[in-house]
Amino acid sequence: MPDYKAPVRDINFVINELLGSEALYQTLPGFEEATADLMSAIIEEGAKFAENELAPLNRIGDEEGCTWSEDGVKTPEGFPAAYQKYVENGWPALAADVEDGGQGMPNMLGICMTEMVGSANWSWGMYPGLSHGAVNTVDAHGSAEQKEQYLTKLVAGEWTGTMCLTESHCGTDLGMLRTKAEPQADGSYAVTGQKIFISAGEHDMTDNIVHIVLARLPDAPAGTAGISLFIVPKVNVNADGSLGERNTMHCASIEEKMGIHGNATCVLNFDGARGFLIGPPNKGLNCMFTFMNTARIGTAMQGLSHMEQSYQGALAYAKERLAMRSLTGPKNPDGPADPIIVHPDVRRMLLTQKALAEGSRAFIYFLAQQGDVVSRGSEEDAKAADDMMALLTPIAKAFVTELGFEAANHGVQVFGGHGFIREWGMEQIVRDSRIAMLYEGTTGIQAMDLIGRKVLGSGGKLLLGFAGMIDEFCEENSGAEDAQFVATLKAYKDEWLGLSMEIGKSAMDNPDEAGAAAVDYLMYSGYVTLAYFWARMAVIARKKIAEADGDTSFYQSKLMTAQFYFERLLPRTESLKKTMLSGAENLMQMPEEMFAV
Amino acid sequence: MPDYKAPVRDINFVINELLGSEALYQTLPGFEEATADLMSAIIEEGAKFAENELAPLNRIGDEEGCTWSEDGVKTPEGFPAAYQKYVENGWPALAADVEDGGQGMPNMLGICMTEMVGSANWSWGMYPGLSHGAVNTVDAHGSAEQKEQYLTKLVAGEWTGTMCLTESHCGTDLGMLRTKAEPQADGSYAVTGQKIFISAGEHDMTDNIVHIVLARLPDAPAGTAGISLFIVPKVNVNADGSLGERNTMHCASIEEKMGIHGNATCVLNFDGARGFLIGPPNKGLNCMFTFMNTARIGTAMQGLSHMEQSYQGALAYAKERLAMRSLTGPKNPDGPADPIIVHPDVRRMLLTQKALAEGSRAFIYFLAQQGDVVSRGSEEDAKAADDMMALLTPIAKAFVTELGFEAANHGVQVFGGHGFIREWGMEQIVRDSRIAMLYEGTTGIQAMDLIGRKVLGSGGKLLLGFAGMIDEFCEENSGAEDAQFVATLKAYKDEWLGLSMEIGKSAMDNPDEAGAAAVDYLMYSGYVTLAYFWARMAVIARKKIAEADGDTSFYQSKLMTAQFYFERLLPRTESLKKTMLSGAENLMQMPEEMFAV
Repeated sequence: MPDYKAPVRDINFVINELLGSEALYQTLPGFEEATADLMSAIIEEGAKFAENELAPLNRIGDEEGCTWSEDGVKTPEGFPAAYQKYVENGWPALAADVEDGGQGMPNMLGICMTEMVGSANWSWGMYPGLSHGAVNTVDAHGSAEQKEQYLTKLVAGEWTGTMCLTESHCGTDLGMLRTKAEPQADGSYAVTGQKIFISAGEHDMTDNIVHIVLARLPDAPAGTAGISLFIVPKVNVNADGSLGERNTMHCASIEEKMGIHGNATCVLNFDGARGFLIGPPNKGLNCMFTFMNTARIGTAMQGLSHMEQSYQGALAYAKERLAMRSLTGPKNPDGPADPIIVHPDVRRMLLTQKALAEGSRAFIYFLAQQGDVVSRGSEEDAKAADDMMALLTPIAKAFVTELGFEAANHGVQVFGGHGFIREWGMEQIVRDSRIAMLYEGTTGIQAMDLIGRKVLGSGGKLLLGFAGMIDEFCEENSGAEDAQFVATLKAYKDEWLGLSMEIGKSAMDNPDEAGAAAVDYLMYSGYVTLAYFWARMAVIARKKIAEADGDTSFYQSKLMTAQFYFERLLPRTESLKKTMLSGAENLMQMPEEMFAV
Repeated sequence: MPDYKAPVRDINFVINELLGSEALYQTLPGFEEATADLMSAIIEEGAKFAENELAPLNRIGDEEGCTWSEDGVKTPEGFPAAYQKYVENGWPALAADVEDGGQGMPNMLGICMTEMVGSANWSWGMYPGLSHGAVNTVDAHGSAEQKEQYLTKLVAGEWTGTMCLTESHCGTDLGMLRTKAEPQADGSYAVTGQKIFISAGEHDMTDNIVHIVLARLPDAPAGTAGISLFIVPKVNVNADGSLGERNTMHCASIEEKMGIHGNATCVLNFDGARGFLIGPPNKGLNCMFTFMNTARIGTAMQGLSHMEQSYQGALAYAKERLAMRSLTGPKNPDGPADPIIVHPDVRRMLLTQKALAEGSRAFIYFLAQQGDVVSRGSEEDAKAADDMMALLTPIAKAFVTELGFEAANHGVQVFGGHGFIREWGMEQIVRDSRIAMLYEGTTGIQAMDLIGRKVLGSGGKLLLGFAGMIDEFCEENSGAEDAQFVATLKAYKDEWLGLSMEIGKSAMDNPDEAGAAAVDYLMYSGYVTLAYFWARMAVIARKKIAEADGDTSFYQSKLMTAQFYFERLLPRTESLKKTMLSGAENLMQMPEEMFAV
């Protein structure tokens, strides 16, 4: 297994130099304590925890997996002990509200911890990670009593939580869900049905698990307008907060799957389980929409984690492994061959991983910071940040996870045949990363959300908001020294607006035109978005080099990686542009029966 | 596991309508019996074998894997019995020479069988498949005695064979290999060393395994000029052909790997094992080059097999699974939702799989047929075919396996979250397909072979040969009815030549320029090559439709898929063109130490 070393230098670059976090958080009520120094100290501690406690369990988790029995699920060796330490160190409460028992740090710092934990051991990270949905739901929609009973325990990590949405016949199309909730005389509900694909749905890390279950009331309208949310604890909670009897729900089985073996993906059966309505009846999906962005940014982070993890493994190998001579003459003349990092194509793969990881880090941390502005900024700022997140979240979720999978595959490729062998740990990253394009809404679903709801649905307003931010940056950095990146970025921004208009027009005549363009459009948008962040980073790096400020080598590497991004990755837009404009006919004309063997 | 149904209609289309095989084989001495009728009958039988005997074992092979013990390797349940049946039915001898006990059918028909076997169960297919290298070596370079002792048994499938090249410190760079062979008094050699990654290196299907081992003679020059080939049987063979004592070589372990679990990937230890020099001393690599193309076409086939396998699984699911409504109104109004094949993006993925599978089939069968011309054609034809294979084989190997992996991933994506679950069998295809970009020379190695040895190394001659074939086709089909595809193809052909010249020029100043462009250039070449085959297929389909000849639905589907290919896949060249011309600087300028965490 490749060692994991948290990229603390780059994380601090993004948080401080790129995103100017300290100055921002001084203006956001309740975040004033989030100084650069404090955040940096927390990151150092988090890095140690991820490197020392979690990374060594990553391969064990994959090899051993989870074990189901009638009594529950046993997680891999070492997982529960690491979780206890995580709780003792107070990590679950890092970015939770102070009034709920949290430490009140910004969401962005929570996301940073998610990165380090996830790069060290994504499967492990999902156990505490899945609690966020439950925390957010209870926080936003729970009664005072519900908060007292569940929220503090969830925030402290004493219990974990889940979101129970999917049923075997419906994942994306939740309107078809069948789980029902019948009102009981005491005000509770009897919840009955089967949920599948519940990550961390059962485990041996905590005494209780708080499930948030989507179900239908007896008189609920059909479709998505008839879904309500219920708290269904694994173990009933007494009025005094102590644990009572086991609820009538259980984990029927766990899935055998391609990757993330260390995390239990559960089938949960609810047999008239005692549950409690949370939020208004039949408004369950609306309640969830409020924090769906957060969950999606968390999943985008999986893409980044795997980029970083795979890059680190491939880089170490490329410096050590000897094969062939450099095309321009031996670089290691005393050895039997040169290290493979001398070969242009190996560098192409490494730089792809590096450029994607660093660019995605900037992108995702920016989004997480926008989330902090939404929750604590002025009304006007919050609105602008909310719009920004609405536009960019589906891009982050789909684009970064797609490229996380690509990056993981480059890591295998750098290893040659050894990449296919389990003991090197590189193929695990491919398997682990594959799920990220599927859960929390597939790439296709994100793409329809982007083009349909966000871009066309807002009449272009959301896109113009981000375009304005790009314009502002380009105007501020219009000097000759940054022209290389800035002019290109500006041209792409214009093209992006033009393509959006064009697709919008054809979609008015035929809605399938939007569907036919959607994924290419999303990927195009992702490359342009990352170009914006790379241009910003390049401008900073250039200034730092000119000022001879700090570690010049770090900034030169940044600048060269920016050049790589603009010359080797951004041009992928050329093809996407052509295919997204190729129209729906080439997809829709073939009758179903002609799809045949 | 998705059922496998051999695409017999499309196979016959390629063999007969596209490649005019019967007419060709009438002109190739020894292949006259290969009429369309006979080949079609053999394909029918092969299809049954693959569908009924092998496909049901595919998931078992993945789940159960191989088991190592001191006594050898146990293959998955059912594998040996299926192998016995395969031998009894005479399949191993299908395309082997009559004088060696073979049935003398064309190599193209052997490749067709490889497709069906491989799509049904790639891991199983590797046991007989790996024999080809040994058969070819003994056939081309063995003495009469060696042929008598080994070849007939290999051809009959009574024994299998392997090629033992890789050692743990060298795969691509065989010049570093250390296994040695010391001459013995009786004319044999004592072979000592360790080989890794030997597919089918040990198993329980046959009584003996014939290993062809690359090793160094005591006085051998360093590097690739000092490699010789040795026959090293697992069990020594007596002069009368009966089996003698176990040779002093054994399987030390098998690898735990990402996929192809049903095939044993072996570490083989040779401890002074009795071996026999085959071919001239120190010329081992040259001997192998003569049939490296065959092995690479076999690996290209793996890409096609997984495209087909994944397409079939995804297609069945897309017609059954209900989710959401079509953007243009319900297509299944009486059901709770529409089948997902109504959604443009699902169709985009299915059509990508279909276009890649059918295009790759045309490409690979064409190459296999060229191999038959090489072995039986007139001197002039053989030379032309050999040139064609030299150019196109690295493209087929790398391009088709890269896109096989992509297609396998589309299959998972069509299944949504279920795609990640093992029982559906779709993720296995991803895992199985991943190795194909690594073994038999990685994509990067194929790319250097293409641009360095083949295109620039021939001074453009090989490329001009294929370009001439494209020109000829374009001229013959210059009518208005085919203009859509033909004009585009012609423009791409010109652009391809231009790009080759441009890269050649910059590589003269700096060889890293070739390395920096290589993979993008190869992928570009692959898309243009497939465009040629799609254009040819489209022209045939259009004529058949005009003549109302046969199954119009089949030809219309072909025509629509061609349109999809030209509008949705071929434009990927736009990005590749830009990146391949972006130069080596963006890859090479960063000093090694700046690659850091």
